[in-house]
Amino acid sequence: MTPRRPRRPDIEAAAFRVGSSVRRTPVITLLPDDTGLPGNVALKLELLQHTGSFKARGALNSVLSLPPGTGGVCAASGGNHAAAVAWAAGRAGISADVFVPASATPAKITRIERYGATIHLVEGQVREALEAATAFSRARSVPLLHPFDTFETVSGQGTLGLELEEQVPDADLVVVGCGGGGLYAGLATALEGAISVQPVEPEECPDLAEAIKAGHPVETEVGGMAADSLGAPHIGDIAFAVAQEQQVTPVLVAEADILTARSFLWDRVRVLAEPGACVALAALLSGAVSPSARETVVVIVSGGNNDTVPS
Amino acid sequence: MTPRRPRRPDIEAAAFRVGSSVRRTPVITLLPDDTGLPGNVALKLELLQHTGSFKARGALNSVLSLPPGTGGVCAASGGNHAAAVAWAAGRAGISADVFVPASATPAKITRIERYGATIHLVEGQVREALEAATAFSRARSVPLLHPFDTFETVSGQGTLGLELEEQVPDADLVVVGCGGGGLYAGLATALEGAISVQPVEPEECPDLAEAIKAGHPVETEVGGMAADSLGAPHIGDIAFAVAQEQQVTPVLVAEADILTARSFLWDRVRVLAEPGACVALAALLSGAVSPSARETVVVIVSGGNNDTVPS
Repeated sequence: MTPRRPRRPDIEAAAFRVGSSVRRTPVITLLPDDTGLPGNVALKLELLQHTGSFKARGALNSVLSLPPGTGGVCAASGGNHAAAVAWAAGRAGISADVFVPASATPAKITRIERYGATIHLVEGQVREALEAATAFSRARSVPLLHPFDTFETVSGQGTLGLELEEQVPDADLVVVGCGGGGLYAGLATALEGAISVQPVEPEECPDLAEAIKAGHPVETEVGGMAADSLGAPHIGDIAFAVAQEQQVTPVLVAEADILTARSFLWDRVRVLAEPGACVALAALLSGAVSPSARETVVVIVSGGNNDTVPS
Repeated sequence: MTPRRPRRPDIEAAAFRVGSSVRRTPVITLLPDDTGLPGNVALKLELLQHTGSFKARGALNSVLSLPPGTGGVCAASGGNHAAAVAWAAGRAGISADVFVPASATPAKITRIERYGATIHLVEGQVREALEAATAFSRARSVPLLHPFDTFETVSGQGTLGLELEEQVPDADLVVVGCGGGGLYAGLATALEGAISVQPVEPEECPDLAEAIKAGHPVETEVGGMAADSLGAPHIGDIAFAVAQEQQVTPVLVAEADILTARSFLWDRVRVLAEPGACVALAALLSGAVSPSARETVVVIVSGGNNDTVPS
């Protein structure tokens, strides 16, 4: 069943619903001197969000949209969505059972536990964790909060776009990493074509690129250093529909470009982002996306759930 | 000789001089839910400044205030001022010889070298580095840029206060770490008593506290985890004069409180600050500074020149 697709008013409603429980994350502007690019680049530091990523937005909107009396939720993800669901459930005073690939970083696992969730480690990737969570959801009749492809999740992620409109009113282009596409879809819907949104995928996680080739979302092999945050097994139906409507194709970046962007963020801005959070900047620094000097570009940097500092 | 003390118009002139060459660093607001404190806390993320600390402001203002034709400068510091002077000299196209305690972190030393400065490692603390730089300055007739106690340095650091006025117009109190007192003095001068500025010192680096006891700046034994950034050998004459005029005494924080604040910044905000950057927040989280629920408090977080991620 194709999930219902949110529109701009749904995102405005989500922003009202989550209110100040999600942080208004700051923006820092880098000048051409900093980046070697012709124009200014505004970094939206969404890694400073609760739980370290934008996932808090969609998770909280999802939890607050549950039927009254719901006692708990379950979820699966590479880690960031799981942490976000654990946090959101804790805020709402309901239980959370979260299913995470056993390969998730210890930092992510520790944080999920600290938010008070029950954690279930699953052998395999996000795909296997999602299967386990689905089985749990059916057996226990506990709502499963999908990491990227529901009306509530996409609406919640889109609230980041409403903030951007206020923070960078002259933005021409928003560049964003794309895994399952929840944030991409939310941003593109929030900004309604008034500001272009360019999705970027790691070459090793080309969900949207493969879907566009096939004409529909397809199961995609994922790997590489960003797989723990962008390694969704396929692009979401909502994100695919948005990309088709806006005739957008993703830019792909190589592993080395992600590492370069990650080192740049730490060396030059003292922002310690996880690899998946660096793909959007990687597209700019590598020249895969090349705006003109007149364009103001926003780069989304999220999340910050690292295990180690770059050397 | 007592250095000339800047006033508010001097800080405005410095802001014009440095222009957009220093970054307008962002602010993120934490709510009582986040901190356990009664009111909101705005974190001024000055560690995202060029070179990772506010020192870039004073260093660039100092370099841009040199007599025309000056070919180079020298400096000494625990690392952050040295990096800032190296960066500022590079921007101005002049040479920099910087003197750093051999105990400075490898991360700081590497960065100084990358900015193109000639680095001189000195056995001992900041005191010994400053002596070596002073000797070099005299022998070579190269201007020595003092890390905290000159008209130009304090004016430059004060530009952070002008930004804060715009970014947090309802601020009641600014809490700031204090080593030699350059930033404290700049902020207190910029904000002219309209917004209170509370300096905080590590118990192990009590320069201002000892000066107030003695009635004048005194040589002070320094140590502890924040000594590489707040371990000035004495409080600056300018900062002491400002504190006396405004009848301000510093709050002291224990090493354990600094560590707690540092872990908080990483775990809850994904900001990776060096220990010296955490003393202001430590004063709030430990209760040493206890604003009311009605007060909006700004906490300066600078710098971010860490060697390691907190566990």
